[in-house]
Amino acid sequence: MKILLTNDDGIHAPGLKALYHELKPLGEIKVVAPESEQSAVGHAISLTNPLRVKEVALDGGVQGWAVSGTPADCVKIALAELLPSTPDLVISGINLGPNVGINVLYSGTVSAATEASILGVRGVALSLNSYEKDADFKTAAGLAVEAIVRLQDWPGWTNGICLNINLPALPKSQVKGVKVTRQDVGPLVEHFERRVDPRKHVYFWLAEINERRELDLETDYGALAAGFVTVTPIHHDLTHYHGLRELRKFVEKK
Amino acid sequence: MKILLTNDDGIHAPGLKALYHELKPLGEIKVVAPESEQSAVGHAISLTNPLRVKEVALDGGVQGWAVSGTPADCVKIALAELLPSTPDLVISGINLGPNVGINVLYSGTVSAATEASILGVRGVALSLNSYEKDADFKTAAGLAVEAIVRLQDWPGWTNGICLNINLPALPKSQVKGVKVTRQDVGPLVEHFERRVDPRKHVYFWLAEINERRELDLETDYGALAAGFVTVTPIHHDLTHYHGLRELRKFVEKK
Repeated sequence: MKILLTNDDGIHAPGLKALYHELKPLGEIKVVAPESEQSAVGHAISLTNPLRVKEVALDGGVQGWAVSGTPADCVKIALAELLPSTPDLVISGINLGPNVGINVLYSGTVSAATEASILGVRGVALSLNSYEKDADFKTAAGLAVEAIVRLQDWPGWTNGICLNINLPALPKSQVKGVKVTRQDVGPLVEHFERRVDPRKHVYFWLAEINERRELDLETDYGALAAGFVTVTPIHHDLTHYHGLRELRKFVEKK
Repeated sequence: MKILLTNDDGIHAPGLKALYHELKPLGEIKVVAPESEQSAVGHAISLTNPLRVKEVALDGGVQGWAVSGTPADCVKIALAELLPSTPDLVISGINLGPNVGINVLYSGTVSAATEASILGVRGVALSLNSYEKDADFKTAAGLAVEAIVRLQDWPGWTNGICLNINLPALPKSQVKGVKVTRQDVGPLVEHFERRVDPRKHVYFWLAEINERRELDLETDYGALAAGFVTVTPIHHDLTHYHGLRELRKFVEKK
């Protein structure tokens, strides 16, 4: 299997490195990732600025390309310019922090996987349910590779579907299993912290509030919190088809 | 009607100004827009950096807030901090350049409208099918306001659906009408231009290739090219529900 590995935390992030080593037995891995952290860039791509690419040697003898752009840029330029042939799989991660619910839309990690499916290649995004600097990416990478191996024969994993996988930050023995979930669409609970800088100017910083609400095990958000590896099939056709039919009727009646 | 007006071309863009003046008869308009151009930022939000907000006087006596962030940031901070009450409608645009097909995913203009629907407010994105510096935004703004007035009573325009409207760059007499469309998911035809800088280093610039393919009038891409105002209902639940059911069966069988 030929695998392209990318992420949004940057090419030197520990989540990418841990994943690389666990993936190695699966096939030939090429690393093309942002040269710097790109969190919450969503599906941004570089149009106004050009991209520069640097070959870098990573720890443990890994060779990779660092790109001066976003995760989606990395997938585009890897497929168009850097890789000798089209990969069988594009893997993005492992992200430090979960990508569930509405946050899926803001996620650079997920957008790299979506970009793969746009370009006709299987994509998978991997995120760990932890924000700790010393998060256990080795265990998470093991879980991720197990899930990928289990899912790789699913015939539906193509045609514009990519997989958004979230991994609990738990010892393997405490993981409840793999659960196929939908994206939670519950409301964001966030606010802006209003602060004052040394020159007495006000600035604002977005902060999320820890919610306490009932967890739905059918959603990524709920099942991850309950200790499952969650797998959500997502796509890049944003059309709301039920709305489309209803809106057509409404416009025709007018 | 209370309207929040934003965009991704920046608060001083002519598309926003033209729209402001056409919208004025509809109600009370507040402008909160990026201080600089934010094209192709997708659904990026600012987490690593805080936001700064400046009150600015625009041409024609318009007051507005310029935000040091993305279109999605503008909607978030407008609703949370800047507006005295929740608006009835968030309008994003008019963008210089269409947002149809796969490009919808890269669009900051569309993401502002999606952000509105995430926050429970009706959102609409407006984009003009022209890249000309002297594009006729006045005609486009007239078409846009007509479409909004016609669609505003649609009861489905809520519950996480926003409207992605694209406007042909044609004199009004040549516009074919309003068409409800789905998002085109045809492949991107693009490549990277490889260039050399004055210091002999290679860099890459993403370029789109003008495709020649059969146009499907049921899609945003096709109907816009044929001269229609296109209206696509889109949403922020990225779950592929058919895939979800199939993947569940696959995982349970294993």
